[in-house]
Amino acid sequence: MAEISWGLIGGGRGSQIGPAHRLGARLDGHFALKAAALDADPEAGRAYAAELGVERAYGNWREMLEGETSRPDPVRLVTVATPNHTHFEIAHAFVEAGIHVFCEKPMTMEVDEAERLVAAARERGVLCAVNYGYSGYPLVRHMREMVARGDLGAVRVVVAEFAHGHHADAADADNPRVRWRYDPAQAGVSAVLADCGIHALHMASFVTGQQPERLAADFVSAVPGRALEDDAAVTLRLSGGATCRLWASAIALGRQHGLTLQVFGERGGLRWAQEQPNQLYWTPVGGRTEIVERGAGGLSPAADAASRVTMGHPEGMPLAFANLYADLAAEIGGVASLCPTAEDGLRSVAAIHAAAASARSGGAWVDARPSLLREV
Amino acid sequence: MAEISWGLIGGGRGSQIGPAHRLGARLDGHFALKAAALDADPEAGRAYAAELGVERAYGNWREMLEGETSRPDPVRLVTVATPNHTHFEIAHAFVEAGIHVFCEKPMTMEVDEAERLVAAARERGVLCAVNYGYSGYPLVRHMREMVARGDLGAVRVVVAEFAHGHHADAADADNPRVRWRYDPAQAGVSAVLADCGIHALHMASFVTGQQPERLAADFVSAVPGRALEDDAAVTLRLSGGATCRLWASAIALGRQHGLTLQVFGERGGLRWAQEQPNQLYWTPVGGRTEIVERGAGGLSPAADAASRVTMGHPEGMPLAFANLYADLAAEIGGVASLCPTAEDGLRSVAAIHAAAASARSGGAWVDARPSLLREV
Amino acid sequence: MAEISWGLIGGGRGSQIGPAHRLGARLDGHFALKAAALDADPEAGRAYAAELGVERAYGNWREMLEGETSRPDPVRLVTVATPNHTHFEIAHAFVEAGIHVFCEKPMTMEVDEAERLVAAARERGVLCAVNYGYSGYPLVRHMREMVARGDLGAVRVVVAEFAHGHHADAADADNPRVRWRYDPAQAGVSAVLADCGIHALHMASFVTGQQPERLAADFVSAVPGRALEDDAAVTLRLSGGATCRLWASAIALGRQHGLTLQVFGERGGLRWAQEQPNQLYWTPVGGRTEIVERGAGGLSPAADAASRVTMGHPEGMPLAFANLYADLAAEIGGVASLCPTAEDGLRSVAAIHAAAASARSGGAWVDARPSLLREV
Amino acid sequence: MAEISWGLIGGGRGSQIGPAHRLGARLDGHFALKAAALDADPEAGRAYAAELGVERAYGNWREMLEGETSRPDPVRLVTVATPNHTHFEIAHAFVEAGIHVFCEKPMTMEVDEAERLVAAARERGVLCAVNYGYSGYPLVRHMREMVARGDLGAVRVVVAEFAHGHHADAADADNPRVRWRYDPAQAGVSAVLADCGIHALHMASFVTGQQPERLAADFVSAVPGRALEDDAAVTLRLSGGATCRLWASAIALGRQHGLTLQVFGERGGLRWAQEQPNQLYWTPVGGRTEIVERGAGGLSPAADAASRVTMGHPEGMPLAFANLYADLAAEIGGVASLCPTAEDGLRSVAAIHAAAASARSGGAWVDARPSLLREV
Repeated sequence: MAEISWGLIGGGRGSQIGPAHRLGARLDGHFALKAAALDADPEAGRAYAAELGVERAYGNWREMLEGETSRPDPVRLVTVATPNHTHFEIAHAFVEAGIHVFCEKPMTMEVDEAERLVAAARERGVLCAVNYGYSGYPLVRHMREMVARGDLGAVRVVVAEFAHGHHADAADADNPRVRWRYDPAQAGVSAVLADCGIHALHMASFVTGQQPERLAADFVSAVPGRALEDDAAVTLRLSGGATCRLWASAIALGRQHGLTLQVFGERGGLRWAQEQPNQLYWTPVGGRTEIVERGAGGLSPAADAASRVTMGHPEGMPLAFANLYADLAAEIGGVASLCPTAEDGLRSVAAIHAAAASARSGGAWVDARPSLLREV
Repeated sequence: MAEISWGLIGGGRGSQIGPAHRLGARLDGHFALKAAALDADPEAGRAYAAELGVERAYGNWREMLEGETSRPDPVRLVTVATPNHTHFEIAHAFVEAGIHVFCEKPMTMEVDEAERLVAAARERGVLCAVNYGYSGYPLVRHMREMVARGDLGAVRVVVAEFAHGHHADAADADNPRVRWRYDPAQAGVSAVLADCGIHALHMASFVTGQQPERLAADFVSAVPGRALEDDAAVTLRLSGGATCRLWASAIALGRQHGLTLQVFGERGGLRWAQEQPNQLYWTPVGGRTEIVERGAGGLSPAADAASRVTMGHPEGMPLAFANLYADLAAEIGGVASLCPTAEDGLRSVAAIHAAAASARSGGAWVDARPSLLREV
Repeated sequence: MAEISWGLIGGGRGSQIGPAHRLGARLDGHFALKAAALDADPEAGRAYAAELGVERAYGNWREMLEGETSRPDPVRLVTVATPNHTHFEIAHAFVEAGIHVFCEKPMTMEVDEAERLVAAARERGVLCAVNYGYSGYPLVRHMREMVARGDLGAVRVVVAEFAHGHHADAADADNPRVRWRYDPAQAGVSAVLADCGIHALHMASFVTGQQPERLAADFVSAVPGRALEDDAAVTLRLSGGATCRLWASAIALGRQHGLTLQVFGERGGLRWAQEQPNQLYWTPVGGRTEIVERGAGGLSPAADAASRVTMGHPEGMPLAFANLYADLAAEIGGVASLCPTAEDGLRSVAAIHAAAASARSGGAWVDARPSLLREV
Repeated sequence: MAEISWGLIGGGRGSQIGPAHRLGARLDGHFALKAAALDADPEAGRAYAAELGVERAYGNWREMLEGETSRPDPVRLVTVATPNHTHFEIAHAFVEAGIHVFCEKPMTMEVDEAERLVAAARERGVLCAVNYGYSGYPLVRHMREMVARGDLGAVRVVVAEFAHGHHADAADADNPRVRWRYDPAQAGVSAVLADCGIHALHMASFVTGQQPERLAADFVSAVPGRALEDDAAVTLRLSGGATCRLWASAIALGRQHGLTLQVFGERGGLRWAQEQPNQLYWTPVGGRTEIVERGAGGLSPAADAASRVTMGHPEGMPLAFANLYADLAAEIGGVASLCPTAEDGLRSVAAIHAAAASARSGGAWVDARPSLLREV
């Protein structure tokens, strides 16, 4: 199996997400890191790339775009892991150049940018996938298949949470690593919902196969001085008739990366938590709760394909992440996968803007759909 | 210690709540059941009372009121455990007669009834307590003291849930034990919020010391044919500035009596679940989560007073329930307690009516306060 | 239902177990406390009994025996909750007088005493039940029925634990409340095994229906200066061919009353923990683990009879305790029950002596059966 | 960072452990798979190696030894993942050739083989590390440091378990994948203890820094027809005075890879479970249990070095495994690490032989130390 040549933009020294991408891309041997523009400081970026043994170290993404497109063997995929407000410009440029893109979330700051990106990817016939990494967990994919094949009957209510407490300390509010997230000039219309809630939102759609249609939101800025929300609740009506109750928080002391999903249908209920991802709780109507173990017999093909080690040996987040890179390799090879698409990215950006608008207007119901994807 | 003579109205053969009241009242030896009107069918009620060894068996509550008030030694407390729509009339009549009342929730169907009951109890100088039984758990009382003494600093967000799945089965919707709960003629303006969410709502106020001021609600009737909601979410602004995010559900398959409370403040977070009531999770800002065991050293006086057996020996719901009877005995003896009051009952009824109105109007923010208790 | 007149010996002011007995006896209204000798100090005992409203307050158990047996209406049951070394003499005297006895564990200090007590109870036709209170939990009784009806097939291995850390602090070793437990003059041949492990041992037999035949033991005295063990492991061969692996510890910091039972059979495995007694985990061979909820439908009659409140409302230790008093009331009324018998008490005493002998001899296998109950 | 050239012996198509080794070796980019002899069938092995893109595909380990040692750039490390009875011969040959070895457990079948391997590795100055992969978990390394720096004071008792139920089904006993494990001709003196218990045994020593000195064992063959044990309990005295209580089982239905460790010392207790490896429970004497999260601040350097992603993002077994490969890379680079050594392998083999001897003799205490490592 030949490795696919791959480029990384952002993710320089000290970054959390850069190493995670490199690990995920390398883990199954699908991708080889051949080109990189790792840092806003060109020298620092080149030095770090050299240290990592990357052949083609660029000072910035424009250099990289030019360098790669002038080669006979450019990278076939670039991962965009730069600050959020730069996602659109970079992703769009590479898509236009015919290079597949794997973009960190949120895909763009604005809805119209996201729509342009979807349109460009469609036109060029390239991928613009979005890193909703938690969708790579085997049992999340199993939930999706259970819903799709009708185990739950019609889904009635989904409860999706992403709660942490890492921004709860008021004394830490001026820490630059925290502060920018609550500054509209840098973070846009939403903080914790765009940063964390977006994962819960995507997962609700990923598992149910239903998209946000209308929503009403409540934002709270609990820590004094914050212009954006650090706690948010959203009620959504989904396209298949289900209601989604979403809560995102950055002040929930005691929670770490508390991404949880509960799905309640006519014939059964599911409960899953990211912090204990190897067990899924399934309660058929009239029956007892069963513990479904990742790696056990009798799971769906999608769950089996996403598992690497035997039942009882926990798999964690880096392997979920790697499953998205495996999806990308499959897609590049012409095989359809479960990898989140630019359309998924667009829907999330639209829903977050809708939620911010609803919150500003005191919780009014608003349309959550992007124009591009509204059915006539 | 002399036992206080006690009467029970409702709770006949086959009732769930009747035995719980008898157990709770007897458990500490504070009350002796001397009078009863147990059933809508006078003969059945008298027969069951005789079987239970109750001295004064009445055919209905009016007989009981007349019988007791014409005695030199009437019961000093009556528990009202009849269908919800009868609570007001019965409670009001006994309060007017100067007899203390312990009323099942919801205290009344209508807000004005609740206000009249509060006024009557104040005027007569008698109790009209309400059975928010979960507030009797020792660790719930410990949470209350932690908040009161400032361990959490200002409370920012409370997440309160009461989720079960016992009404999820559409095939069971016509079961008479289920159906009446979703019939406005019998249940009033709300089903699962009035039946279950009311406990979570009370607990949020009990623990934080803050009352509902404004709220916005979303009701879902997931099972076809239901006129009232079987799943509800409410966002509340509380009197001290905190936001409460409340979820109640009767279709959450896999949950039993999933009453949980999370309280997030400036200096720490708390998490507690009714189904595992002997542990409380406390996370101080910047520190590790600690497991607080009921019965351990170093708890608050209120928690110690509400505990009966040593750490590691679980106490359950019947003992929480008994703590409210101990409170009632204390109050009757002139000692203040933590027992939920008629004012608490009124606030809950007002909030539920407000939530129903908000839900009808598409989630508009409405005032949640009863007129009687609005501060000028 | 008339209350049965009841007497309590021991359990004076400050005792942990006295209030638990009074609570358990009163909870269902089966027993009325009519006579008491509560304290080694006659005056203190009488004063406390008066305070509790007990009619017949005695200075010591001999006075009580004489007083009651000279009445036309003596108590029908006495509970013996005195220091361990006095159990035999008191229990034997009341049994000889034809009064039913409920004795704290261990039933006696010596095996021959236990044999004499069994013989006396048989001869007089009275009860000499032993307080293995944890056997009153509904799900423990359900496990017993599952084994009895063959759900597990032949039981292969039982893992039984009772671990706590309350005697781990060397600085606390001289505390009189702790020290006597490790003094052979007061505690006999064993400390933590006789005090705690005895419950796990009884539960293994209660659930499997198999009795100890042979055993090998290892005792550790971890805290310096202790003559008796504060940590013990015992391997037992049971009468039906199963092996029981037993661990008891008083130095296991982080455990509270860590009584757990795992039962592994040909067709399935069970796991239960006293600190979360309302859930039982059942794994059929080839299937998924299921969570069995106390109070749910489909449980065995014994479990249903021992439950008081609905599924999802936790029941705790005091209610398990009360189930033994309900058993005693049934037995006194001529109805067989699951209440632990004098034979059970004898078997435990014999097994503990056998374990102490094995430990002294470096872990040799010894016969665990009392002579009286050896099958020819 | 240049990749170290690496060879793999065993781990052919369908193997569980082969992919795990390839994943672990590749994950951090330390090793490049350059040579392989993957299968007992030379053709199958070569074909699979070619499919995996391995440059030098050999038909068997002897070919590989010859081929590599005749090159100027032989592999620097070989992993031995062949059937247990071949470990010694292969590992010894490569060690003698001066090539570092990473050997699956058990390192050898016989104690004298293990001693010869230790001697050879010492003489040649090469590694002969053993794959106790669970020792790579960050929180296991944190426990080790907590003990080493004295947080627990003297360790008193260790409770180590490795329980699963995957061999419980008697109907499955003739399955070839199961049967060989209980055949002394193929598995040697022990089945579940040598296969699973060995990990728990190593972990007890790894965390406490104490080695087995004496032990007594009980073996049970629960499934009919098995010559070797499927359930074992061992009591060990360790070199620092602690007692270890070890339980291993292959018939424990409901457990998956139930490797758990509890360590009880003078000043605190620890509890950790492999199936939830990102949390550690720490109870200081006199204090509350705290939940220690992998990746949180304030952990030991060893735990930090072994962590890859942030707190709340679970890491699982493959990353623990990769930590041993990182250790191997460090050792090859001349930097000391925590990687289990040939001495560790020898001690385990000796202890298992001692346990088998003890079990055969009815649980007698025997010396657990290999002659080579007995202190004079």
